[in-house]
Parts: sequence; C-alpha cells; structure tokens
Amino acid sequence: MLTIDSQKTSQKLKKFIKDYLVKLERDGIVFGLSGGLDSAVVASLCVKAVGADKVMALIMPDNDSQKQHLKDALKLAKQLKIKIKLINITPYLKSLGTWGLSPLNRLPIPRSLKEKLVKKAFAYYQRKTGINPFADSLLGFKDKKFASWLQKGNAYYRIKHRLRMVLLYLWAERENRLVVGAANKTEAKIGFFVKHGCDDAADIMPIVDLYKTQVRQLAQYLKIPQEIITKAPSPDIIPGVVDEQAIGMSYEILDQVLDSLETGLKTKQVAQKLNLQEKEVEKVKRLMKRSEHMRQVYSPV
Amino acid sequence: MLTIDSQKTSQKLKKFIKDYLVKLERDGIVFGLSGGLDSAVVASLCVKAVGADKVMALIMPDNDSQKQHLKDALKLAKQLKIKIKLINITPYLKSLGTWGLSPLNRLPIPRSLKEKLVKKAFAYYQRKTGINPFADSLLGFKDKKFASWLQKGNAYYRIKHRLRMVLLYLWAERENRLVVGAANKTEAKIGFFVKHGCDDAADIMPIVDLYKTQVRQLAQYLKIPQEIITKAPSPDIIPGVVDEQAIGMSYEILDQVLDSLETGLKTKQVAQKLNLQEKEVEKVKRLMKRSEHMRQVYSPV
Repeated sequence: MLTIDSQKTSQKLKKFIKDYLVKLERDGIVFGLSGGLDSAVVASLCVKAVGADKVMALIMPDNDSQKQHLKDALKLAKQLKIKIKLINITPYLKSLGTWGLSPLNRLPIPRSLKEKLVKKAFAYYQRKTGINPFADSLLGFKDKKFASWLQKGNAYYRIKHRLRMVLLYLWAERENRLVVGAANKTEAKIGFFVKHGCDDAADIMPIVDLYKTQVRQLAQYLKIPQEIITKAPSPDIIPGVVDEQAIGMSYEILDQVLDSLETGLKTKQVAQKLNLQEKEVEKVKRLMKRSEHMRQVYSPV
Repeated sequence: MLTIDSQKTSQKLKKFIKDYLVKLERDGIVFGLSGGLDSAVVASLCVKAVGADKVMALIMPDNDSQKQHLKDALKLAKQLKIKIKLINITPYLKSLGTWGLSPLNRLPIPRSLKEKLVKKAFAYYQRKTGINPFADSLLGFKDKKFASWLQKGNAYYRIKHRLRMVLLYLWAERENRLVVGAANKTEAKIGFFVKHGCDDAADIMPIVDLYKTQVRQLAQYLKIPQEIITKAPSPDIIPGVVDEQAIGMSYEILDQVLDSLETGLKTKQVAQKLNLQEKEVEKVKRLMKRSEHMRQVYSPV
C-alpha cells in the first residue's frame, strides 16, 4: 500500500534539488537537521544531489530536545561529511520571554516527570472536552476555561520552529545558500507543523509529496541509519509529545485515509475500504479542515 | 488612472477582516505598526471592522529606524485608541549576531553619514555592474567580488522583518489574535518585501490586491494623518534606503506598468501607452521574474 519506486523517486528528487540550486542562483544548501527521519532523508538527498562540500546543516536543539535526537543528528552529519553549526536556541527563547511561559520550566523537576505531566494534561483535556488537544489547537480552543493556559502553550512551542527558520535564512543569506525544508505530505495535509516555521517556510520542499510511510521507504533505500528510521517520530518540541499520540492515529492508517480521500472516496467508502470506524475518517477530515488556514495567507477575492 | 471606489473598497475590506476573525476563531487582531502608509491603512480598517478594543499593534523599531516613523506610529495608535506594545528589536539582533554584520555599526558615525554612505554604495554598485542593487539582491549577486559583502547586507536587514513576524505570532498565539499583514500589490509583485518576513507571512493580507497608489487613495478616504500619506515610502530597514530610489522608479509609473502588464499588454505596447522607454518596462518585468521564488515554496511536480 502506498508503495513507491524508491530508486526513481530518489533520482527525481535529486534532480529537483540540483535544478533549484541553479535556478535560484545559490552557491550551496542549508537545512535544519533534527535527528529525525524527514531531515535525515533530505540531508542524504542533498548530498547526493550537489555533493557534501556544498551542504551545511544547522542543528538547533533547545533544552527540551531529547539528547538522543542530537546524537543521531551529529552522527549522521559526520557520516555524510557535511559542515554543521550547532546552535542551542534556549538563550534566544529566554530573551524573547517564551521559555518562562511553560510552568514546567519553573519547577525543578526531571524531564521524565515533565513528559508524564504533559501526557496527563493531554489526556485530561481530551476526556474533559471530547476533542484531541492537537486538533483543537489548530483554531480557537473549544474549552474557554483552559484557553489562556493553552494559548501560552502554543506560543511556547511554536516560536521554536519560527526561530529555527530565522536562523536558517540568516545563514542562507550570509552564504548564498538555498533553504531546503523537510515537510512531508502527511503533516502538511493535517497541519502537523508550525505555520511560518521551519517545516513550512523554506525555498524548496523536496519530500512534501511523499506521505510519512513513503519517506520511510525512501529512507531504507538511502541507507539512513536504522535507529533514525525505527524510533518514534516526534516534533521534539514539547517533552512527552510524539507524533502518533498527538495525532491520535498511526501513520500507517493515517496515510491510507489521506490517500483514499485524495482519490475522491467519501467517508463511508474510506471506512469500509480500510476497515475503520467512520468517526476515525471524520477525525482526519477535521484535521484537514481545521488546518486549511495554515496552508495559505488569505487575501480578498 | 487606477482609481478605486474608496468607499466600496473600504466596506469590502472591513467585511473581509471581520469574516476571517470569525472564520479563524480568534478573539482579536494584532499587526505591526511602522508609522508608514500601509500599516496605517490596515490599522484603520481593523479598528473600523472589529472595534478598537479588539485591536493590538506591535511597534517594533530597531536602532536604524527613523524617529519620525516611531512618532507617527505612536500618534496614530493614540488617535485610533488601540493597545500597543513597543519593542525595540536591536537587542535581539545583537544576540543573534546580525547587528554587527554592518560595518556601519562598528563606526561611531551619525545616522546622516550612514545614509550618505549607503546611497553612495548603491550608486557605485549600479555604475559598476549596470544593475540596480535591489534587483540584483533578489537572486544571486552578479558581481562576485562584492557578493560576500552584499550577502551580509541581506542577512543584516532581512532578519529584522522575520523577527517582527516571530514577535507578531508570539503575541497572536498568547492572546488568540489574528495576524493581519500590510503587504500591497506593488511590493508583492516586484519582490519588495522580505521572504517569510512580516510583510509576507501573516494570516490575512487585506490590502494585497491594491497597488501602492490605490492604498494612498484609500488612506485619504480613511483620513489617515497627512504626514503619513505624504512622506516618502521607506522600508525603514537600512539607513538611507527609501522605496522609489531602491526600486528606481516612482510608484505612479510602476503601478501603471504593472497594471498594463497584467491586462496582457506586451512590453512595446506598455511603453507606447505610458510614453516610456522599453527598457523601463523591461526593468519591471525583470523584478517580477527575479522575485518569482519569493511568492512560493517550490515542491516537485
């Protein structure tokens, strides 16, 4: 299901990257390397497309980031023989005043406890409101009692990816590099990204037409280290939040629902085809609908 | 020429703003107020659309900004009775390391001398290369000898508008506000904005279908203070750089060229119609072409 021809796809994407380096008259490439799957695939494609000497990765953890992702990013950069800049963005978040927006950062507690508390808070909100908190965060929060607290949460984490975008363009402009983004089709369709952040604002987006499960296939073909392919995908932006739990569905199911909807099937048909409850399909449609505003800047018609 | 029905336009744009406040489920509005024409018009429209109590302006000068623009912004905010936050962004620029990229900031010289030096540098580049430096900055610089210096210049000024965008979203998210941008049609078409900056990345862009000369008409109708309408438009981002000098053409001519091209006329026809040299029309087409990449994020077809 959703199988790609990895060799052909890899060829096509390498050409795409190379073409835009020339078309946009740049001397090299820069991207953010998080230690996750998507940016690893982008990194590998870029190196194959234009050569390691033209490629620079910014590794931009903050104090919430998992150490393992940083290790994986550093190891991959070394393997690929690309230049890196390691920038911890926490000092910027502190001076912008957002680091203190999380009450967790005002308590002297270990990361493992932060993760538990965030998970409990997510579950509590879902139980209380009947809505997935990620889905709810895409527009106005349903529960007005929690709204002010949750809005601070949005401000707390979203600024991280916007600041990463700012840093990528800073180095892109200094060295006339092309900013290559790592958004995939799944997250782009359901709004699992930060509007105008590093997974949205770039010069080119090579893998945005591939669902997450297809990026995984490509990663195998590109011989991305297994530990990067098999670990649980996470935006690594709030302690305790991993993709599939936040979204409330596995990528295997989600990608098939999105693909079936794209071919024009109705809710009922998709549910039947994939042996799902209709409300699961409705959930995906709701995410697509509520994130519509994140894929455009509206102007008067 | 390019005359609008200001009353009708104002009605339409107020409805547009009000509709999106509801559609995106926000409790209020936030925008950047620079003291210039475009953001003044946006401010006035927002107040008329949703009421002053729902409107907040961020005034975000840096140490390069002209004091007069700050005064004009503060005065207008007071007139409109809107809440403001005044944030000087220079400390952030210093901690991000871009403030020091300008050699002018390492010299103890007055602003008036900085302005003169920038103007001389622009003129020198134009004479030396035969290209307008603004046009050249939209893709790779033609003159490779100056490139490293000019790239630093790009990084120096562009980060300002991206940081302003970051601050707008920070406050938008904290208080569930809609980010209203102030891009106009002229600058959007020729790339006279910062890619992914505050004049590009927003939730809605009410005046992006109006040419600069049409925004001026609307400003008269909205009774924007005369000093804001009549002063020379400037991005206020590099000392000494004002719009018409950087672009190399007056808005009166530029808007007519853009409009004539939009109706499908060829270069020769536009030149004849407006009594211009063909190379003037070519210059505008070149800006449109070289800024194409700023209006989209490319993905594989």
